[in-house]
Amino acid sequence: MEIIEYRPSRDQLVYTFGGAKPAMTIKPGTVLKLWSEDAFNHALTSVEDLSSEKVDLRFVNPQTGPFYVEGAEPGDTLVLHIVDLTPARSWGASATIPFFGGLTSTDRTALLQDPLPDTTWIYHLDSARNTVGFESRFGDFRLELPVEPMLGTVGVAPPGGEVRSSLVPERFGGNMDSPEVKAGSTIYLGVNVDGALFSIGDGHYRQGEGEACGTAVEGAMDSTIIVELVKGGAPAWPRIETDTHWMAVGSSRPMEDSWRIGQLEMVRWFGELFGLHAMDAYQLLTQTAQAPIANAVDANYSVVVKAAKSLFPSASAYDGVHTDLRDRSAGI
Amino acid sequence: MEIIEYRPSRDQLVYTFGGAKPAMTIKPGTVLKLWSEDAFNHALTSVEDLSSEKVDLRFVNPQTGPFYVEGAEPGDTLVLHIVDLTPARSWGASATIPFFGGLTSTDRTALLQDPLPDTTWIYHLDSARNTVGFESRFGDFRLELPVEPMLGTVGVAPPGGEVRSSLVPERFGGNMDSPEVKAGSTIYLGVNVDGALFSIGDGHYRQGEGEACGTAVEGAMDSTIIVELVKGGAPAWPRIETDTHWMAVGSSRPMEDSWRIGQLEMVRWFGELFGLHAMDAYQLLTQTAQAPIANAVDANYSVVVKAAKSLFPSASAYDGVHTDLRDRSAGI
Amino acid sequence: MEIIEYRPSRDQLVYTFGGAKPAMTIKPGTVLKLWSEDAFNHALTSVEDLSSEKVDLRFVNPQTGPFYVEGAEPGDTLVLHIVDLTPARSWGASATIPFFGGLTSTDRTALLQDPLPDTTWIYHLDSARNTVGFESRFGDFRLELPVEPMLGTVGVAPPGGEVRSSLVPERFGGNMDSPEVKAGSTIYLGVNVDGALFSIGDGHYRQGEGEACGTAVEGAMDSTIIVELVKGGAPAWPRIETDTHWMAVGSSRPMEDSWRIGQLEMVRWFGELFGLHAMDAYQLLTQTAQAPIANAVDANYSVVVKAAKSLFPSASAYDGVHTDLRDRSAGI
Amino acid sequence: MEIIEYRPSRDQLVYTFGGAKPAMTIKPGTVLKLWSEDAFNHALTSVEDLSSEKVDLRFVNPQTGPFYVEGAEPGDTLVLHIVDLTPARSWGASATIPFFGGLTSTDRTALLQDPLPDTTWIYHLDSARNTVGFESRFGDFRLELPVEPMLGTVGVAPPGGEVRSSLVPERFGGNMDSPEVKAGSTIYLGVNVDGALFSIGDGHYRQGEGEACGTAVEGAMDSTIIVELVKGGAPAWPRIETDTHWMAVGSSRPMEDSWRIGQLEMVRWFGELFGLHAMDAYQLLTQTAQAPIANAVDANYSVVVKAAKSLFPSASAYDGVHTDLRDRSAGI
Repeated sequence: MEIIEYRPSRDQLVYTFGGAKPAMTIKPGTVLKLWSEDAFNHALTSVEDLSSEKVDLRFVNPQTGPFYVEGAEPGDTLVLHIVDLTPARSWGASATIPFFGGLTSTDRTALLQDPLPDTTWIYHLDSARNTVGFESRFGDFRLELPVEPMLGTVGVAPPGGEVRSSLVPERFGGNMDSPEVKAGSTIYLGVNVDGALFSIGDGHYRQGEGEACGTAVEGAMDSTIIVELVKGGAPAWPRIETDTHWMAVGSSRPMEDSWRIGQLEMVRWFGELFGLHAMDAYQLLTQTAQAPIANAVDANYSVVVKAAKSLFPSASAYDGVHTDLRDRSAGI
Repeated sequence: MEIIEYRPSRDQLVYTFGGAKPAMTIKPGTVLKLWSEDAFNHALTSVEDLSSEKVDLRFVNPQTGPFYVEGAEPGDTLVLHIVDLTPARSWGASATIPFFGGLTSTDRTALLQDPLPDTTWIYHLDSARNTVGFESRFGDFRLELPVEPMLGTVGVAPPGGEVRSSLVPERFGGNMDSPEVKAGSTIYLGVNVDGALFSIGDGHYRQGEGEACGTAVEGAMDSTIIVELVKGGAPAWPRIETDTHWMAVGSSRPMEDSWRIGQLEMVRWFGELFGLHAMDAYQLLTQTAQAPIANAVDANYSVVVKAAKSLFPSASAYDGVHTDLRDRSAGI
Repeated sequence: MEIIEYRPSRDQLVYTFGGAKPAMTIKPGTVLKLWSEDAFNHALTSVEDLSSEKVDLRFVNPQTGPFYVEGAEPGDTLVLHIVDLTPARSWGASATIPFFGGLTSTDRTALLQDPLPDTTWIYHLDSARNTVGFESRFGDFRLELPVEPMLGTVGVAPPGGEVRSSLVPERFGGNMDSPEVKAGSTIYLGVNVDGALFSIGDGHYRQGEGEACGTAVEGAMDSTIIVELVKGGAPAWPRIETDTHWMAVGSSRPMEDSWRIGQLEMVRWFGELFGLHAMDAYQLLTQTAQAPIANAVDANYSVVVKAAKSLFPSASAYDGVHTDLRDRSAGI
Repeated sequence: MEIIEYRPSRDQLVYTFGGAKPAMTIKPGTVLKLWSEDAFNHALTSVEDLSSEKVDLRFVNPQTGPFYVEGAEPGDTLVLHIVDLTPARSWGASATIPFFGGLTSTDRTALLQDPLPDTTWIYHLDSARNTVGFESRFGDFRLELPVEPMLGTVGVAPPGGEVRSSLVPERFGGNMDSPEVKAGSTIYLGVNVDGALFSIGDGHYRQGEGEACGTAVEGAMDSTIIVELVKGGAPAWPRIETDTHWMAVGSSRPMEDSWRIGQLEMVRWFGELFGLHAMDAYQLLTQTAQAPIANAVDANYSVVVKAAKSLFPSASAYDGVHTDLRDRSAGI
């Protein structure tokens, strides 16, 4: 396996899906070791740093990439297997950015009320215990929470010549903010342009479902990812496979539409996996699916619909590439 | 403990929250052993029975109750601890009722397309294996799934003299269709009228999150429930406590509003449990909450926001009534 | 024509659709002269009166009625022709009730922000000029606006034994807050229970589309209404006819669902009026319909879809009852 | 006044806002005479042409432009005054594209139902009578409707390096599909990039509010537009001024968010026009605004919030540029 390390300099960071020149061209099968900057672009380093003063909203969610994958053509399936995610700093930051988040009015849910207090929280990492520390800002409460690294964004260039902000989750992936994008997960994304042009970023040292305030424990991340390509078979919406689950992610508004998208994508996938008629897949998933909200705060809301493999006959998606990648990852 | 058994006759079933005379008056501390009819009112007993022909939509989701709880007054907290749920028949039914469900147009998401095929699935219960059997209707696929009994509806009379269909989930509980309403769970509901007037029904032998097609594995159920009362402390929206989680359930439309409601109720609860300022609770829940969709199909959509007790300091809700009820339930 | 006057005393006011005993029984063809209290139940009489202190939310939107219409049965069409609406007081009131309205968070769009300032505006009526006077509360700005009386609520008892707050717009009519419910309009409502049990209230001396802050220029109203009954033909959702337009009102959430409902009801009506296939009605309405938002603030959002008669061949709805009622109203 | 005519060849058409090289650079004050292709890119010329066979969804809503306006910088206000819109062909087309439109499931409102019939309607223009002719496709019904030309799309390049499909309405304008974008209207758009890079297209010979089926009477259009620039003053969302109204257009999802955006933008504008405090503007608009839905079918839903000038004191927006442009247009 070819292993490539890439740590972008500040001026190599990109802020869109589509529209950026590839950082490099890679072959399917390549192992990437990537460093990514945090979502605030390193603007919040203490609780004294306020979002309204320090964060430049033009330069948030910096992406590492994009990568041009040799042979990837529209209609193909880009396969990204996350081997490892390791925090690259000893602290992470979270903040309530004015008029951004789930329990505040926003530029979309546009109301007349005053913003919530502009507040920053810093979480210190304890590597030995593998925890991050919460410290209250309006009282005296401390808590250690397990580190559970994930990537908020992983996406390819959109179709139709569109270029989208790295804050957006969509059909092309992007800022889905799902805790399922973690070590051991395989992400399937439909390719829209030659080379796929995928990028990753927005590392979270941990995040709850919904990402309520709009920012997780944001931190720089070291990611090890194996890149594969399946010719054809592009899913309509992002799919994720782990050792235990098959999943699809819908991202739209209102949130019921995100759920409908994810549910319908799972109906299609169950058709492929088990030869089920859509009505039978609909019925079977009704009794078995899980449906965690990924984010309720971004430009689009994301919902994951997932099925536990333990409930179903064994089945092989994309010719068993997930199992194959798990095996390969053990050898890195 | 006083134990009362109640099996309503067909003409004792009720179809609303509020508006029905109490089936009986009970004291706080009473153990109820209740039988409930299935959501279709026993109209679908084979795959030949079609919803459009057999189901009378005026008489669905029949409720067992309501029960008048002595001493319950508006502003109090009704506490229902589910000791046991056991299927009361050897089969359950599910169906795609025309223009009802999550992946079809409805009377609300009103479109011009033809309905999906009116289809019924029957799940046979294997008591020994504790499974229900799925059989495809448009192919040849069988699968045994674990029985995981839950109650689709549990609710009290609404405020303001309103009477609501038993199909509706709302601030008063009702048709939340959450798999969290299972044996071992304690439900907290704000009391709106003297006596609370709660009822239960809509037993599911199992259900996935979202209840995609609109009907779970619907079946008659034997429920054992301990009823308690906390004076005052009424939550704004239903709360649930288990040995492992604190939860709140929001039910509204669009789905992001359901999530907002549940999330805000958890912020309030964390204020009560830990003395946290709302901004700190918002932040802490951002990194820790789970957010499964309960149903995406009813008159209102329901979202559960939950927090795992294992992540937090120990804390006692409602003076530890859940733990107390767990102890009591062991003695039944 | 039998003319009946009815001015409810304070304890005769009702606050629900369904669930109240009829104020009286009337025959189809009756002319009703009704007085209705303002939506605040006369709680705000000066700018010093704050909603949070004076308004009892259990007793808002008081209704005059309900009226039991002889011969009305489920499936029939109740026809209410508004002959005249005249302000019954020399002033109206509007207010920004905390956490109520369109540009604030609410109990549904549940956020953490502080409420907007609790503010009351009083509009004095100039009968000679037929205007109400706006006076700013945070500056020095005055403006006379034409009086354009309308009724915020007109509805029948809901089906299924439900009882709904008079704040709710729904399939049964209710708090639609449409400026189209004005003198000269004929309202068609599907009958759900014997006698229909309709009521009216929530007089507005004027209101913009959307009713942005949640309260119009609220005032007591004298209404003259002719009541008719068409056997059968119940519309699925409220319809309105004027000399110039056919309309349907959808009320649900999210707002696109309200629009879908209204649009689909108009497709059905165009089928009845012109014998058009649904696809052709869909197409024709695409190019001709108007779609004003009625309210963006109530328990459900209401959208009116309307078609200008001037664009279409003449057509007679419900056997020309609107024209007949216009003629009759001239003789009162 | 400099008058420039521009008729793009087929390969000069563009399909995005942002991302395309300018067709030309123009000075503020220029009069543009522009030809635009129809939204189907001339793919539907008879009722035998089906969308699914003839329309290439990568090449719909072709834009004429973009134009680089000298001196335009981010934060400025681009002013486009529409002098004249004249149909450039003798017929227009409309169609129900499978899974596109308001009364069908879509890729967002993703359901399992079959698509509506793929149907095309051709409207023949009668220049003498200034009408287009509707002919039913599923029966025998004909109707002449007045030509009321409008532009479905008018927009500038988005900020942040984004490139958006010409099917999208957003903060930058785009596919708002509002009948208010007609001769006599002045459109104000915030400039996001040097030169503004605006384009127009998607001519409609007529359209109802909501554009229910997703396509208006689509036709090639000759547009005469005066381009002006106001330094600074960029509105957050598109504003429109006519001789009779001030308006703002919100475009998002769900539809209540579109309305909130438009309503809040009008509150801001009333602050500028009349010096009103936001709470007083909120109140005054509550009693006076109109709120027609523009489209319920695009990637975002668009709602117009408008205020009739006749109700208010005279006021001058952007130093009276609309009146000035009306005067100038008379001289062309």
